[in-house]
Amino acid sequence: MSNTFNELQEIIKKLSYYVHVSEVMYWDMRTVMPQGGFDDRMNTLAFMETERFKLGTSEELKKILDTLSKEEEFRALSPNRQYIVKRMKRDLDENARIPVEFVGRFSEASSKSERAWEEAKRANDFAIFAPHLEEMISLVKERAGYTHPGCEVLDVLLNEYEEGMTSDKIDPIFNELKEKLIPLVRKIGEKETARNSVVSGSFDIEAQKKVQDLLLEYIGFNSDKGCTGETEHPFTLNICDGDVRVSNHFHEDEPIGPMFSAIHEGGHAIFEQNVDHELNCTVGGSCSYYGIHESQSRFYENILGRNINFWKPIYGKIQALLPQFEKIPLSQFERIINRVTPSFIRTDADEVTYCFHIILRYEMEKAIFRDNVPVSELPLLWNKKMEEYLGITPRSDAEGILQDMHWSDGSFGYFPSYLLGSIYDGMYLDAITEELGDVDKILSEGRIKEITKWLNEKIHRFGSTRLPADVIENVCGKPLSAEPLVRYFTEKYTRIYDL
Amino acid sequence: MSNTFNELQEIIKKLSYYVHVSEVMYWDMRTVMPQGGFDDRMNTLAFMETERFKLGTSEELKKILDTLSKEEEFRALSPNRQYIVKRMKRDLDENARIPVEFVGRFSEASSKSERAWEEAKRANDFAIFAPHLEEMISLVKERAGYTHPGCEVLDVLLNEYEEGMTSDKIDPIFNELKEKLIPLVRKIGEKETARNSVVSGSFDIEAQKKVQDLLLEYIGFNSDKGCTGETEHPFTLNICDGDVRVSNHFHEDEPIGPMFSAIHEGGHAIFEQNVDHELNCTVGGSCSYYGIHESQSRFYENILGRNINFWKPIYGKIQALLPQFEKIPLSQFERIINRVTPSFIRTDADEVTYCFHIILRYEMEKAIFRDNVPVSELPLLWNKKMEEYLGITPRSDAEGILQDMHWSDGSFGYFPSYLLGSIYDGMYLDAITEELGDVDKILSEGRIKEITKWLNEKIHRFGSTRLPADVIENVCGKPLSAEPLVRYFTEKYTRIYDL
Repeated sequence: MSNTFNELQEIIKKLSYYVHVSEVMYWDMRTVMPQGGFDDRMNTLAFMETERFKLGTSEELKKILDTLSKEEEFRALSPNRQYIVKRMKRDLDENARIPVEFVGRFSEASSKSERAWEEAKRANDFAIFAPHLEEMISLVKERAGYTHPGCEVLDVLLNEYEEGMTSDKIDPIFNELKEKLIPLVRKIGEKETARNSVVSGSFDIEAQKKVQDLLLEYIGFNSDKGCTGETEHPFTLNICDGDVRVSNHFHEDEPIGPMFSAIHEGGHAIFEQNVDHELNCTVGGSCSYYGIHESQSRFYENILGRNINFWKPIYGKIQALLPQFEKIPLSQFERIINRVTPSFIRTDADEVTYCFHIILRYEMEKAIFRDNVPVSELPLLWNKKMEEYLGITPRSDAEGILQDMHWSDGSFGYFPSYLLGSIYDGMYLDAITEELGDVDKILSEGRIKEITKWLNEKIHRFGSTRLPADVIENVCGKPLSAEPLVRYFTEKYTRIYDL
Repeated sequence: MSNTFNELQEIIKKLSYYVHVSEVMYWDMRTVMPQGGFDDRMNTLAFMETERFKLGTSEELKKILDTLSKEEEFRALSPNRQYIVKRMKRDLDENARIPVEFVGRFSEASSKSERAWEEAKRANDFAIFAPHLEEMISLVKERAGYTHPGCEVLDVLLNEYEEGMTSDKIDPIFNELKEKLIPLVRKIGEKETARNSVVSGSFDIEAQKKVQDLLLEYIGFNSDKGCTGETEHPFTLNICDGDVRVSNHFHEDEPIGPMFSAIHEGGHAIFEQNVDHELNCTVGGSCSYYGIHESQSRFYENILGRNINFWKPIYGKIQALLPQFEKIPLSQFERIINRVTPSFIRTDADEVTYCFHIILRYEMEKAIFRDNVPVSELPLLWNKKMEEYLGITPRSDAEGILQDMHWSDGSFGYFPSYLLGSIYDGMYLDAITEELGDVDKILSEGRIKEITKWLNEKIHRFGSTRLPADVIENVCGKPLSAEPLVRYFTEKYTRIYDL
C-alpha cells in the first residue's frame, strides 16, 4: 500500500514538472519575452499542457488512484494524502472525458484570444475581440459538457473557481449587498463632491519599487521564497512554495494604485508561501479556491491596507522614499485611500463600489451562459448595468467590457470570487478581533505580522485540503453571511464621511 | 518518403519544445529566480532534459532516421534536410549509448557544481569547489566513454565544441601565437608604464542600459526578436530565432566593460537571429560550433568594437547619455579601450593578452584529461602558467582558477573556441577588406550594418549546416592560419603604442 502511494508520488512529481515549466513560461512571457517569441512559445505551452493532461488522465494513474481509493487502503492514509487521492481521482474522472485534442485546441485558442483582447483594448475596438470571445464561450461550454455532462454550465464554472459554490447560494447574498450598498453609496456621494483627494506630481519609479519592497516585507512576504516583476497587469504566480512571484505595473504619475496592488498580490503570495511544505507540488499545495485566495489578498489590501493604522508604523519611511508625500499628512492620506466614488475601471475602484463591478460581471456571465445573449449585445448590456448600479456610462469599450483580461483566456466564473473574498473578509475581521483583539491597536503598534501568523495558522497551511465552506466554518464558526462586510463598510464610512 | 520526413518533423518539434523550456528556465534562473526555487527548478530541468534525451534516442526516431538515411531517400532531400538527418542520426547513435540515468545524474551534478562554484568564488575557497570539479571531470570522462568509446577524451571534448577540431590542429597554431605574441606584449609593456587610462566616477546604471540598447541597435540586434536582462555573468541565450536574449552585468564605477559585453553578446545574438527561418528549432537552426560562434561575438567586440572608427558615428550620443565621457576625447577613448597589459581576469583582458588566458586554460585541460593531474594541484599549476605567460601571479584562487564558470557545469573543451574565434576573425577581416573595401572607412561612415549584412549572408544564415572548416574555406578561401590575426595585432598596436 505504501508502495502504491510511492508510485503515485512519482506521477505527482512529473505532473508538477509540467506545471512548473508552464508557470515559468507564463511569467517569462508576461515580463520579458519579445514578440518574435510568441508563436514558438504558444506551441511549447500547448505541448507541455497536453503532456501534463495525458499523464493526468493516464490508465497508469487511474489504476493507482483506484487502488488507493479502496476503503481499507484509503483509511490508512494521512488526511493530506487522503485529500490528494480524492482530488486527483475526481480530476481524472472529469478530465478523462475531455478529448486530448481539445486540450491543445483550448490552449492555442486561449493564447490567441488573449493577444486579440490586448489588441482590442489598445485599439478600443470590441470587434477585434468579439470572434475570440465567442470562441472562448463556445470552448468553455464544450469543456463543461465533457467534465460535467448535463449540468448547468454557469454552476460548473462557479464550482471550478470556488468549489461548492452555486448561483443558488450566490444570488441571495449578492442581492442583499445590492440592497444595502446602493443607499450607502448614494449617501456617501452626497458628501463626496466637496472633497479633493488627488495626488499629483511625478514619482520616481525606482523609489516606487522600493516602497513596494517595503510593503511586501512589512506584511510578511518572504523574498527568499519569491521575487517581483513588472507586467501590464499585476498578478501572483506560484511556481513552487519556494518560488512565489508577484508582479506590478508602475505609473510615474500615480503611486498609490501600485502600492495597493503590491499589498493585494502580497496577500496572495503569503498564502502560497505558507502552505505546509509536505503538500508542495501536489494538488493540495496551492490554494485552488479563488474566493478563499481573494479573501487573503483583499484582506491585506482593504481590511488592513485601507485602515489608517496600517500606515502609522511605516508612513515616515514612505515619505522618505517619495518626498511628495511629506506634504500629505496621514489624515489626508486616509481620505485619499478611502475615497468612495463610482468609476469605470474595476481595478481602480474603491472597496465599496467594487462590489457592483463584480455583481455586474456575474450578471453578465449569467446572461452569457444562462440566457445565451449574443456576444454582439454584450457591450451595450455592460453599459446599461453600469448606469443602473453606479450611475455612470462608459465612454468606450476600453473602459467598459474590454477592461479585464479574464474572459479572454476563458476564465468565466472567476469574477464572483473577488466579492466572495470580501464577504469572507468581513467574517475574518470579526474572528480576528475576537481572538487577537482590536485590529486598529495591533496595526498601529506595528504588529501586523501577528495577523499574518494567525492567517498562516488558520488558513494558509492547509493549501487546498480544506474546502471553502470548511475554511469559513473552521475559522469563523458561522455560516456564510454578508452582514459583517456590510457592517464594516457602514461603520467605517459613516466615520470617514461623517454620514 | 515525404511522409517519413513529416514524421521526423513532428519529433523535431517535440524535441524543440524541451529545448525551449530548458532555455527559458535557465534564463529565469539566472535573471530572477529566488533561492527558494532552486531545488524544484533543478528537478524540473533534470526531468525535461531526460524526456528530451529519451525522445532523441528513441527507437521511433531511430527507425525514421534509418529510413531517411537510405541512399535514394537521402538524395531526394534538400541540403538543409540532409544536414538535419545526418546530424540527428549521428547524435542519436552517440547518445543512444548513454544510459538514461546518466542524463539526470549529469544534469543534477552540474547544477550542484555550478552552485558550489559560485559559493567557492564568493568565499575565495577552492576547497568548496574541488569535489564538484572532480565529479564533473569524472562525469565528462564517463560521457566521452559512452559517446566515443576508445577515443582520446580531450579530442572528444574539442570536437564537441568545434566539430572537426583536434589537439593536433590546435597545438601548432597556439604555439605560433605564443611565439609571436610574447615579444609583442613585452614591447608594448615597455611603453605602457607611462600611460594612465582609467575612467573614474559614478555612472548611472539606467543610462548604461540605454548605452547598451544603443550599441545593440547600432550593430544590428533586432529587439523585436530578442531582449536583454541582467545576470552575474553576461551570456546569450537562444530560445528560438524570434527570441534571442543577451544579458549583461553593470557596475556603477566601470561602464566600459559592460559596453563591450553588450557588443560581444550582441554578436552572438545577431548570428542566432539571422539563421534561415526554415532551420528554426531544428539541429541546424542554431550554430552549435563554438569557435564559429565566438568568431562572430569577438569580431564585433574586438575587430569592430575596438576600432576607433566604430565609435565615430555614435560617440556623441554616448557622451549625452554618460556625461563623464564629455571629458574624454575620442583619441583618449581609443587608448583606453586598447590598453594592452597583463591582468588576472580573462573577461577583463585586452584582445592581445586574452590569447594567453585561453592558451593557459587549454593547457590546463590537457593536464586534466591527458596527464591526469589531480584536482588539488590545479590551482598551483594555473598560477605557474600565469607567471610564465603574463609575468603575474594571482593573489587568490578567486582571481585565478575560480574565475570562470565553464568547468563547473562540465564545459571542458569550450575555452579554445574563444581563441579559434579570434583566429578566424583575422581571416574574415582580410576577406571583408577585399570584398567590401576598407573597414575603417565603412565604420567611420556609419555603415557597420553593411558588415552585419555580409556576415548574415556569408555565415549566419547557414546556422549549423556548414562545418567550421567549410565556413572558413567558403568565406576566406584559405586554410586556417593565425597569420592574419598576428598581422592585425602587430599593425594596430605598432601604431597605437608607437612601437
